[in-house]
Amino acid sequence: MAKYAEALDDVFVALADPTRREVIRRLGSGPASVGELARPFQITLPSFMKHVRTLESSGLIRTAKSGRVRTCTLNRERLELLDGWLDEQRRIWEARTDRLEELVTHQEETP
Amino acid sequence: MAKYAEALDDVFVALADPTRREVIRRLGSGPASVGELARPFQITLPSFMKHVRTLESSGLIRTAKSGRVRTCTLNRERLELLDGWLDEQRRIWEARTDRLEELVTHQEETP
Repeated sequence: MAKYAEALDDVFVALADPTRREVIRRLGSGPASVGELARPFQITLPSFMKHVRTLESSGLIRTAKSGRVRTCTLNRERLELLDGWLDEQRRIWEARTDRLEELVTHQEETP
Repeated sequence: MAKYAEALDDVFVALADPTRREVIRRLGSGPASVGELARPFQITLPSFMKHVRTLESSGLIRTAKSGRVRTCTLNRERLELLDGWLDEQRRIWEARTDRLEELVTHQEETP
């Protein structure tokens, strides 16, 4: 459970930045090199690499170096942690709605 | 668009903490006072209030003070920003799968 909470922390932190979200979006279309990913951004390569490292350590992407080229791949499973968390919230809301409905029905039945 | 990106940044930052996620989960069952929300945590009330402020400024919760009691309410709409963002990613993955399928079909057709 602690590991799940930590993984969620890392994923949320990693996604709390427009550059990193843009990288995730781009990798949704397929793997890309760091150079290719960095191109649309007005930042230095070392700054961009920090974003890559944050994404990698969160588990959202994987990287592999071949010669001088580092290729990044999206790890969709890790992104699906968010779906799981959101589903859990929805189940809680639905349980609440059910309780409220029960309460209203009960009140209507009571003369 | 900049506003949407900023709103997403704030929501992701707000959720990148287990205490704040626990507050969101608790509020899914209905509104609660700050005192009630703070009770399960081993932190001081001022520290807890910082979490409440972060959640409030992200728009994930609303708070209202009546006398000495501040009541917090979940703003589900703001949490649904995440669903929107995740849906967008899924559309990108699906478009990629479609392109790959097309490519494979095309290759199979070519003698």
